[in-house]
Order: sequence, then C-alpha cells, then structure tokens
Amino acid sequence: MRRQLEARAVLTLDAGDRVFAPGRIVWEGDRILAVGPAGDPPDPDAERLVLPEAVVLPGLLNAHNHAAMALLRGYADDSALMPWLRDHIWPVESRLTAEDIYWGTLLAAAEMIRGGTVGFADMYFEVDAVAAAVERSGLRGWIARGLIEAEDPQRRKLAESVEFAARWGGPEHPLITPMLGPHAPYTCSPEYLQAVGEAARRYGLGVHIHLAESREEVAELAARYGQRPFALARGAGLFEVPRCVIAHGVQLTPEDLPALAGLTGGLVPCPVSNAKLGNGIFPYALARDAGLAVGLGTDGPASTNRLDLFTEMRAMAWFQKLAQGRPESFGAREALHLATVGSAAVLGHDGGVLEPGRPADFIAVDLEASPTTPEHDLVSNLVYALDRAQVRWVVVAGRPLLADGRILTFDEAEVRREAARRAARLVQA
Amino acid sequence: MRRQLEARAVLTLDAGDRVFAPGRIVWEGDRILAVGPAGDPPDPDAERLVLPEAVVLPGLLNAHNHAAMALLRGYADDSALMPWLRDHIWPVESRLTAEDIYWGTLLAAAEMIRGGTVGFADMYFEVDAVAAAVERSGLRGWIARGLIEAEDPQRRKLAESVEFAARWGGPEHPLITPMLGPHAPYTCSPEYLQAVGEAARRYGLGVHIHLAESREEVAELAARYGQRPFALARGAGLFEVPRCVIAHGVQLTPEDLPALAGLTGGLVPCPVSNAKLGNGIFPYALARDAGLAVGLGTDGPASTNRLDLFTEMRAMAWFQKLAQGRPESFGAREALHLATVGSAAVLGHDGGVLEPGRPADFIAVDLEASPTTPEHDLVSNLVYALDRAQVRWVVVAGRPLLADGRILTFDEAEVRREAARRAARLVQA
Ligand SMILES: [Zn+2]
Ligand SMILES: [Zn+2]
Repeated sequence: MRRQLEARAVLTLDAGDRVFAPGRIVWEGDRILAVGPAGDPPDPDAERLVLPEAVVLPGLLNAHNHAAMALLRGYADDSALMPWLRDHIWPVESRLTAEDIYWGTLLAAAEMIRGGTVGFADMYFEVDAVAAAVERSGLRGWIARGLIEAEDPQRRKLAESVEFAARWGGPEHPLITPMLGPHAPYTCSPEYLQAVGEAARRYGLGVHIHLAESREEVAELAARYGQRPFALARGAGLFEVPRCVIAHGVQLTPEDLPALAGLTGGLVPCPVSNAKLGNGIFPYALARDAGLAVGLGTDGPASTNRLDLFTEMRAMAWFQKLAQGRPESFGAREALHLATVGSAAVLGHDGGVLEPGRPADFIAVDLEASPTTPEHDLVSNLVYALDRAQVRWVVVAGRPLLADGRILTFDEAEVRREAARRAARLVQA
Repeated sequence: MRRQLEARAVLTLDAGDRVFAPGRIVWEGDRILAVGPAGDPPDPDAERLVLPEAVVLPGLLNAHNHAAMALLRGYADDSALMPWLRDHIWPVESRLTAEDIYWGTLLAAAEMIRGGTVGFADMYFEVDAVAAAVERSGLRGWIARGLIEAEDPQRRKLAESVEFAARWGGPEHPLITPMLGPHAPYTCSPEYLQAVGEAARRYGLGVHIHLAESREEVAELAARYGQRPFALARGAGLFEVPRCVIAHGVQLTPEDLPALAGLTGGLVPCPVSNAKLGNGIFPYALARDAGLAVGLGTDGPASTNRLDLFTEMRAMAWFQKLAQGRPESFGAREALHLATVGSAAVLGHDGGVLEPGRPADFIAVDLEASPTTPEHDLVSNLVYALDRAQVRWVVVAGRPLLADGRILTFDEAEVRREAARRAARLVQA
C-alpha cells in the first residue's frame, strides 16, 4: 500500500540539504517513493495523512547502546566507576535472565521510539532475547553479544555469536543485523581479538567494539602491550573486517590517525556518557578533518540514564563549543547530521536521508509548542529547544511504530510493569 | 482556603532531606501548613487532590535569565559572539517595544511554568512590561533593568530603575522583587558601578550583575583597570549592598576568594550558556568549599535556546564530572539542591524547601513514564532521566499555575501566536 504524509516541512538531509515547506513524503512498503513540495498533485492511490503542525525528518540512529541496562537505570548512580561496576552492576548482571533482558530491551525500545530513534547498535548478552525484543518493537537493530575473554576461555561464546548471526542474519529478519562484539582491548587479548577478526571476515560480519574510552584504558594498554588502542585493534585485524563500529574514541589523538586509515565503519562518541563518567570530550574536529565517519550514541542507560539522541545532539554541540572555546566551532546542523547520516555511515546503512529509494525511516515532530516558538531557525529549534515529548510519529521501514504519541507495536504499560517488577527483584536478590 | 495534595512521594529537600512516600502537603493562602506521610488523618477542612502517579518537590528557581529574548530563540544561532551581538541581536533589540517584551516574557513564562520553574531573576529592559507579564503569569520575579553606561550617560536609567523599584516593590506586588541590574564591569565603569551600589544601599535594593563570564572579559578588565572582575565589583561597593546576585562567575579562581568574603547573595552558573558560548565550566568545588552560595540559571533563551532547569541540572552534573574526571565528584542530589535551595539562598528567598511556614511553591511530576522506569533512585531519575513534559502541576504562593499540564494563568496559544507574529516582524524589519 502506498502512503503519503503531508507536513508543515520535510527536512531531507540530502546532499543539497533540501527542505520542502510545506512538504510531503510518499512511501510504499519499506521504501520512499517521493519527497517534495506538498503542492504536487496528490497520488490518487495513496492513503493520505496530513499533519499541518509537524515537521518530518529522518529518524535518528543510536550507534552505541546496551539497551537492556534500562533495568538498572539510576542504580548506584554517581558512584566511582570500579566500585559501581564491581559492587553493583556486575552482581546484578550476573542474575539477569534472558526474560529480564527481553523486557529490559523493550523498555529501552519504548523510550527510543518516543525519542525519535529508528534504529540502534546494541552490545549485550542473551542476544536472542535482544533480537526478539527488537523485532517485536519494530526498530532496526545492529545486535552484538558482548565478548569478554575471561568469560570465554574456550571461545565458545565467539562460536555462539557466529551461530546467532546465522539465525538472525537472513532475509526473514530484514531489520536485524547481527555483529560480533568484542568488548574492548583491555578485556580481550590481541589473540582473542584476532580470532574475532577472522570470524568476522569468514562470515561477513561487522564488529562493534569499545576503543579509547578512558585515559586509564590508554595507560593500561600502553603498560601491557606498548601500544595505543587503535593500533592494537588494527594489529589484530579488526579494521580489515567488513565493518568496524568503534564506540567512544574519546582519547583519539593525531598519532592514532595512521592506524585508522582506510577504515570501513567509524567512530561513535557518546557525549553524555563520556562526560558523566568523567572520560572527556571526543576530538570531533580531528576525526572529521581526517575523513573518518562519525555517528552518535547514548551508551547504556545505566550510566547515561536517558536514551535520547535529542539530548545527545545538543550535548555534543555544547561539549564541542566548550572544547574549542568558540560558539561558531560546531553547529546544530552538524549535530543533526551526526545522529542521522553520520550514524548511518558508521553502521553501513542507507537511512538517515529522505529521498526516493531510501528506507522509509522517518519521524514527525510537533513544533506547535512554547519551547519551539518562534521559528527563526528550524534546525536550531530541533536540536537545541525541542523536547522528545514533541515526537508524535515514528515510521520504520514504512511501518508506524508511534502514531500520534502512542506506541503501536507493543503494550507500553505492560512493558513498564514487567520491567519495574524485574528491576526490583534484581536489586533485592 | 486550605488544600491538601497527596502524592506517591513528597521530597522536602529540608535539612534532613526527608522523603514521605506516600506523602502529602497541606497549604493555606501562600504558605505551607504541613508536610508529612499521606497516612495522617486528612484535614477535614481541606480541599483534597490525590495524584497517585506523581512526586511532589520544591519548585525550581532560575536565578539568571533575560526572558523576553525568547522572541529571538535560534536567531543567527551558532555564530561567533561579537558578530552575533553586533549584526543580529542588538539591531533587533533596538526595535523591541514594551509590548514585544511583554509577550516575549509571557512566552518564556509558559516554557518556565511547563518546566517546573516557580520563579526567576531577570535582567532586561522595559521592565514595567516584564513585571506586568510576570505578575500575569503568576511566577515569582526578581526583576532588574539591565544598565549599560554608554546608554546612560546622565544616569537617568539608573534613576528610572529606582522609580521602577518604588512602583513594584510594595506589598501589592508580593511576588515581584525589583533589583538594580548593572550589566557588567566591562560595560559599566567603576564610577557607574559605585553609583549603582550607592542607590542599592540607599533604597535597600539587591543588585544583579554579570561577572567573570569569559576569559576575554577578565583580560579586558586586567588591561583597563589592572583588576579582576570580583575585586573590581567589591571596590565599587557592590558587595556591600543588601544582596548581590552574580551571574556566571565561570572564571573564578582562588585569588578571587578574598574579594568575595562575606558576600550576601551568591553565584549563578548557567551551564548550558557557559558551554554553548565556549566560556568554560564553573569551578563549583572551589565556590562550595569557600562557603559561597551557588544557584542555577539558564541565561537568556536566545543563547541557551531552552529555559529548562531540568536540562541545566543534568548539564551541571555532566560538566562537573567532566572537569573533575571522576563520576563520583558531583551528584544528582547536589544538582537538585542548586536549582532549589541554592538559587533560593542566592536570591534571599525562603523557598526551595517544603516545610511548614515556607512558601507554597512546589511542583508535581508524573513518573509513570518509560524514561523514569524503573525507580531505583528517585532523585537520579528526576535529574538525569525526566523530561520536563512530565511536569503536570506547578503551584506558586499557593496558586496553581499549571494544572494537569494546562496553564491556568494565561492563554498559552494566544501568547505563542502573538510572540511568533512579533518575532517574525522583528527580524524582517
Ligand atoms: Zn558501551
Ligand atoms: Zn546573562
């Protein structure tokens, strides 16, 4: 069935950064057929939806998450990192069942859908449960099991990751992209990373890894291996895999650039997490000037507390301006590009742009609210002023997940109840 | 009339940081009569409101704003500071009428009320229009005309500020506190500041000033006067006035502390503005350890884009953790205290705490939403995870301004229409 949505404006984020105001978007199945001015004669075969108060833009892509940690949001918050992990997070995670992770991922999906996110890259465990939840939610998911060598001496979990990819990588799961998820070079030896790289190449899988997040990591790897994180990953062959999604990269310096030359994939700063954990500000200008793809992520909700790319976009802008000391050094347009086409480039996805032939992944936000009045600058309002509560429609692969503020793909109240019940049990146990 | 509100929890933020869950608050006129567990026998004379999904907490206080600049939100955003001011903001401001400022202030009031703010300190011009808008909105206002010496060679505007204070300072305007607003030591000479200080002392008025916002300001004052901003303000007698509200203070260093000794008033960092304009991170630990009162502000909506103290609270936490490099160096509780009791201490107001005899200034937020599920930590959820759209009730001096998400004191749609019309005219002229 063909559908047409007419709105006050359609932001394409295409190469010409075209805006149609008023505008329309026509789609059929999971693909966009047409984007243009609303005045064009309506397609007689299309079901019409008219939203005179809304602006349509590409859906946002969260390129780094641990979604099910929504169950632990706020738990032992504001603690020092190691006591937080060792005394609180890890003990609880050891009690998580596949069912818990299913409901936790759905809770995160509810928040992401409400925040205009259309897809996310996830690293966690019990990935069949993650994939089932993602599929039920209707979101796109790039899903990897987090691999920590100490928990995988026989490399069974690596083998299971390959089996998971075989189960979920086919055309019957069009919105799921399995990946391999070696946690980090401080939790996986170069030999283990090399084994992951070999599996990725053999089975045509992408890799999702944390690199250069903290100063402590850089110091530890220097002491242990005499190498920086990027050189280590390159040496293990992780940049010769079909795609490498690198979370954080906060500690990137000019001396790391040769190691990243020719990378397929890119870097995913998580501005709120990087600040909240005290790790620093991603050197965006350095990465951009080196021609590296850069996206945007939230990291897990236990540390970030909110899975909100609108917040991440403005936080990215604030941190970059702060680091540069000049308000003109980074703009709202750049932030919006990172959360759409930027993340898409890192993930190897053709979304993030509204034009014919692209995935029908878009959102409609209601700008008729005091915080987005007046309208001197639409993109500035979207990035700096909008609340995610103004997101009213979310369409992924042509299918509405959120319609006039209501989630269509699952019962949000049931998910909240189940998640709250399980979260309470986990911390009491 | 006596009223009683029962809620899932009442956060008092009193000296014992008591939380009643479930809890109730009873008030009569503009004052709180009782705060306690909901189980206490209901007051038979009180009108009862029961909000089982809500948490009640003290209303937030925005201690630095230029509210009417909501008319310029997003205008020439992300520009370098001087071209932004000289080529865009100042020319438009020169065209602003008192009517424009009235509607712009109401637009800002709508956003503030929706964001759980119960009062704000403002510096702008056409202050009779500002005060009229604040009074209509039902918010508390600490209102100062911004004084720039080059525009006031005869000190007529200073004299008018004193007249304004006489008009609005009496008991017939119980929610309005007039102040004097010398803009900054780089726009007012020491002699002019001294005249302001004398007027403040003579008429018993507080002073609201920008100090130590940017590195450029510090360098300019050093070159011109051989002094740092705080020493300059002290030398002009501004710290001997009844109260001095200091916006920003980002460039505070240990050598400034003697100048601030014994200050009545305090410092108001504006984390988003300070980052977005590239000015830096307020040295909170230094100010706190020196015993200085610290509040929280948004600065004007033309640079900050949103008048949202929930955003400012989390931004404050992120920036402090970033500056310290440790997640445990600043917490959600501290952020919430800054936006309530902290701002109240700076403004000399007895709000920010819920206990008998205090002003009946409080808000109720709906926590039954995916982003604030589960509830491991109420304060962490309020500061890091909540959206301001979850604010459902706002009560100031016993009077509801927002009831179940609807503004009661003015027609928000009319305000948005008027503000949008005027904003469009201003930038086209
Ligand atoms: Zn992560
Ligand atoms: Zn200001």
